[in-house]
This record gives sequence, structure tokens and C-alpha cells, in this order.
Amino acid sequence: MSSASDINMNSVARTILVDVSLARSDAQSVADTLRVIDEQVAPLGLQRKFEVLQLTDSQLYIYVSKSYASGTLRIYPSKKLATLTIEESSEDQAMTNEDIESLRKQLMRELEVRVVRVPHLKRGPPVANYYTSANERLFEYDFEEILFEKKSDFQEVKILKSPTMGAVLFLDDLQNLGECDLPYTHGIMNFGDYSYTDKEILILGGGDGGLLHELLKEKPKFVTMIDIDDVVMKSCRKFLRGACGDALDSYEGDNYQVIVGDCLKYMDKYANEGRKFDAIFGDLTDVPIVTGENGNEQQHEQWQFLSKVVNDSLKLLKVGGVFQNHATGKGCGNALETYENFLKTLKDTHFTKRSRFVPSFLEDWVFYSVYLDK
Amino acid sequence: MSSASDINMNSVARTILVDVSLARSDAQSVADTLRVIDEQVAPLGLQRKFEVLQLTDSQLYIYVSKSYASGTLRIYPSKKLATLTIEESSEDQAMTNEDIESLRKQLMRELEVRVVRVPHLKRGPPVANYYTSANERLFEYDFEEILFEKKSDFQEVKILKSPTMGAVLFLDDLQNLGECDLPYTHGIMNFGDYSYTDKEILILGGGDGGLLHELLKEKPKFVTMIDIDDVVMKSCRKFLRGACGDALDSYEGDNYQVIVGDCLKYMDKYANEGRKFDAIFGDLTDVPIVTGENGNEQQHEQWQFLSKVVNDSLKLLKVGGVFQNHATGKGCGNALETYENFLKTLKDTHFTKRSRFVPSFLEDWVFYSVYLDK
Repeated sequence: MSSASDINMNSVARTILVDVSLARSDAQSVADTLRVIDEQVAPLGLQRKFEVLQLTDSQLYIYVSKSYASGTLRIYPSKKLATLTIEESSEDQAMTNEDIESLRKQLMRELEVRVVRVPHLKRGPPVANYYTSANERLFEYDFEEILFEKKSDFQEVKILKSPTMGAVLFLDDLQNLGECDLPYTHGIMNFGDYSYTDKEILILGGGDGGLLHELLKEKPKFVTMIDIDDVVMKSCRKFLRGACGDALDSYEGDNYQVIVGDCLKYMDKYANEGRKFDAIFGDLTDVPIVTGENGNEQQHEQWQFLSKVVNDSLKLLKVGGVFQNHATGKGCGNALETYENFLKTLKDTHFTKRSRFVPSFLEDWVFYSVYLDK
Repeated sequence: MSSASDINMNSVARTILVDVSLARSDAQSVADTLRVIDEQVAPLGLQRKFEVLQLTDSQLYIYVSKSYASGTLRIYPSKKLATLTIEESSEDQAMTNEDIESLRKQLMRELEVRVVRVPHLKRGPPVANYYTSANERLFEYDFEEILFEKKSDFQEVKILKSPTMGAVLFLDDLQNLGECDLPYTHGIMNFGDYSYTDKEILILGGGDGGLLHELLKEKPKFVTMIDIDDVVMKSCRKFLRGACGDALDSYEGDNYQVIVGDCLKYMDKYANEGRKFDAIFGDLTDVPIVTGENGNEQQHEQWQFLSKVVNDSLKLLKVGGVFQNHATGKGCGNALETYENFLKTLKDTHFTKRSRFVPSFLEDWVFYSVYLDK
């Protein structure tokens, strides 16, 4: 049972979306829909203000109230859909999700069609809380406090805090790691199925320090971590201690070293020196999120970067060693398939996969182990 | 790495929300904001169509393109906020989240203020995918198929299927139980910490069959389950087998019975007969979601119902018996406190609590065990 005080109405305005199917695509159905919507939004104070504005695929209508509400209605006859978007800003008379549900049910009853709604969206809240899954589904978080916010030379670094997730690091508005996210770190480690005791380990990225912290508990021989962004490490050291503990308090210890730098350059250096590792982690903050149809320039760059990281890592592995990598959300089936097809082209290797539900990602995340066989 | 085919653009239109802070609340700041927004939405084809419309707390501006886009801008000078809402419906030239992110960054750069965005919302998709947490945060799911949809005498019953969650039961648009939700069932059972072997058990509600299925694995003496809605049970039997298994294939077995009826009436009957149970589950579908300020009629009814269920259950427990109940999301701190304060008023009892992350709820859910001490 939730109460008013559990529901954050702490925003300047709320936007409400209601999608109304049309019974048919003819003019009569459009007219009926318009008439019923006019009637049903009237109790909210909304009156249609302008006559039809013709767009290529739709008609646009504007609603305004005398006080705090406005709305737009677009009717797409050929798609048999009307989209109603209401904006309201009164705190005293805020529409609740129950009010919107009543509107939805009333429209369904009057028009005898399918009506769906998006619960209210908060405009101008003090902390931005809308982020997406890897496949761009929308999630609203419950962050209440901005612990840290700075544009570094490489990215926008942000640490937010919520009562249910603790502190969570965001890089360029992508969820990166939260204090609640041990499943991520255990996922990339393949925890329980691989022993790091007495191993020589290289972490590429991992600036949040969570992986370093967990690895050091496993009594490794030596861990080298290379992350390019010191702003990330310094802020996590201060605000993400639930994940990194004291691992970043010093950049050098008995059995570890943290290097601020470009991991690709260090990998070249290590290759020239003939240095080898038992385990290498690809824990780079630059998770490639690809959205275009057939690949744009950014995607090609991301693929090139990713495949270079994997290939260079394999050159630095001892025989029998492992490259541990995180990929993307379980819902990104095509991306995972593409990545696996790439892994299959690598010589003298085999790979295994697993997934863990990562709390701050709000989704199952997929991890791969690539073993160098000979 | 996700690809275009992982991202569901399967909708008639997309709505995009961008919130722009104002540097100050004076007329010059409003004018600057308006000018920069005019400039930045022009490449999207959007032109301001009308002069200012004055609402009590804001000015409203309308944008339209010659083809597929429209937009509204509300500027709230005293709140130092401008809310831009863009609707676009072209499939060929769909704005991606990257485009919106570019717009956001451009606005930040030009205006030197905080700009946040809500990633695109899908209008008119074939399956409704926007649902909320217990404290009304918005989540977008990845359901692709409607397996079942029917209005019963008691509620709207819906079973949706997704590639990541399997089939999930919704009652009146509230997530109820999914095939991925063993943590819920184990949570309410207090699995591992309480033995049901040889126990006499009563389930109030539980129409999805998940709890019955898991309890029967524990070799109880006898389980009686009473759910009011046969539409739920018949649909779960067919479409939610990953949760209920074969438990609902027959309503009578060697050690269980499923009754279609009102649990309150049966509890009165059992009390009159002097019948007692070792464990009683409050697994009622009617999760009280309360939104009003100081409690409205619906909330009072829900409280009365809930307290009656608990009190009547205690009358049917053997000494040492337990009432197992689920409450709400971990984010609803005030609601949980109110419930706990109620539990503390119950004579001769003590209670314990726990939480489990329930995948289809996308949040931690809180469970209580109330023990009858004497």
C-alpha cells in the first residue's frame, strides 16, 4: 500500500498521454472520436481552441484551459489512432493516475475502442529520473539527490542517490554501476566459476572501482587497472564507496596498481614488452549503443574499438587465460548475436556466456568469457 | 551493443519531452529561451505557428512542420522552466534518442542551463507497454504479444508475453505475477526459513496458481485455496504454466482443493466450524494502491478490507501459526510504516519482514510474516 507521500509529485508540471483507437478510418469515426474526446476533457477544464491544422498524416487540435492545463490531439485516420497529450501544472488540482485511468475507462466506454495511457510524466523535477534500457525502453528511477555532476574531458560524470538503489554512477546518462550492483561485478567476474587467486590480472576501464574492490578480495597475485578518466575514479572514491570500498583510496598497493591513461596505448606497450596476464577484463565505460539501421560512422568506430580491444587482449593472454567482457541487455538479441558471430571468428578460442539481473540497469545483462586455448 | 532491430519503433508516432531550465525568470530570459528553441527545432522542420497563449502560470506556443511533426512549448517564468513536447510520426525520418540527445546538448550549449530529456515515448504500439511501480514510477516493458485479454466480473485480466520475462499476468493493469517471478513466490513463502511439510495451509487469493504450485512441492498435509475470479485461474492454467505448472489443471487433488469464491465468507464459515490452519497466505490480487492526500473513500475501504483479512486470519491460526503477506514496493516507505504500525497493534503476535526483487515488478517487494504467539 503506497501513500501520497510515497509518490513524488515534486515537479513543475505533469504530461499525460492517452492513445485512442479509431473504430474505422472514415470521416464519421474521426468526428465521433473528436466529439467524445471534447466531452471527456471538458471536466478537466480543457476546451478545443483552434480548428483543424492539417499535417501530412494527421489533423492537429489544440486544447487550453483558463488556468493550468493544455493539450494537443492528433488524429491519424489511416492509422486508426488518436493521440491525446495533456499538460497540467497545478499542484492543487494535479491529475492523478487514477484520474487518467477514469478518463481512459470513460473513453473506452463511450467509443467502444481500445484506449491505452501512459501514466503521468514529471516535467522539471529537481533530479532527472528518466533513463533507458539498452534497447531504449524507458525507466523512471527514484533518485532524490545529485551527489556529483561534472563534465570531464571524456564524458558527463554523474552520481545520483536513491533510497532503494543507493548511489549510482552515470556516464553520459548511461547507468554504469550502482552500490546495489554486486550482480554486475560478480557477473563479469564469472564469480564462483573462476578463481583469481594468485593470478595476474588486467582491468581495461573499470573506473568505478567496483571490480578492483571485488577482485582484491580473491587474493590475486597482481591487478593492473587502466582507466582514462580520473574524474570518474575520484568521484566514485568519494561517493560510491558501497561499490568500490577503499580500493581507490590509493592508486598503488602491495598487489595492485591503478593507471590513469589510455588502455590501448598501454596494451601496445605490454605487447612490446612481452608481458602476459591470466585474466583481462573489458570493463570499459564506452558501452556501444547502436541505433541506426545499417550502421553509421559512430557504430563503425565502436565496432572497430571493441574488436581491437578483444584482439589486443588475446595477444596479452597466457594460454588458458580468459578475457572477461560485458556486452549488453538480454533484450538486445540481434546485438548479442552479432557479437557472438564476431567471437566465433577468433582463432584458438572458445567462449561461454551468462547473464545477471543488474539492479540499477533494471534488466538482465549478458557477460562473455573468451578463453585462449593455445 | 544493440542494433536497430532490437529497438522497437513499432508505433504510429513518438512523443519527445525536453525540459529546459531558464537562466532567470525575467522577460529577457524567456525571450532568449524562446529564440534558441525556435532556432534549434527548425532543423526538425518545426516552426512556431501561433503567438503566445496565456495560461495562469505559463505561456503556450505551438509548433508545426509541413509534414509529420508538431510540438508545444510551455514557458513557466516563475518556475524558471520551459517544457517542450514534440510529436513526430514519420517512419522514414523518425527522430532517434541520439537526435534528441543532440538537441538537448545543443540547447545546453546555447543557453548555458540545465536541460533534461525523456527518451521517446511510443504512441499507438500494438501492445501497451507502459506500467508503473507501486509508487507510480513509469516503466516501459518489452511485451510483444497479448496472450489473453478479458474483462471478468471483477477485473480486467490480461496476460502478456515478452522475450525476457515470459508470460506475465496483469489485473486492472497492475503487474501480478510472471513466469519469471519465482522470487515473489519464494518471498511470500519465506522460502528456506519456514517448512510447510505436513502443514495445513490456507491461501486467500493466489489465483495465478504460482504459490499453490510451489507449496505442493513442499509436501504439505493439505492446501485450501480460495480465489474469487475463475477467469484468472482458467487463463493462468493455459498461459502462465511457467508459474503455476499443472497445479490448476484440477481444482481437487489428494492434498489440495481450489475453491472459486469469496474468501471472507469462507473464513467466517471456517471460524464457525472451529477450523484451524498452520499457515495462511494473504495473496490477494487486490493490492491496495493509495494515491490521495489524506485518504479517500477507496483507501478507507482498502484498509478495512486488509485489516479484516489479517484479523480474520489470526482467528483461524493455530498457536505458533503464521500469516504470510505481501505488502508493496520497497520505495513506498510511508505505506510500509503505516502497515507495520497496524501490525504492532495486533495482540499476541510478532512479525518479521523481508524483501525480494521481483523481475516483472522491476522493484524490490516487501513481505511480512505475522506469527500467533499464544
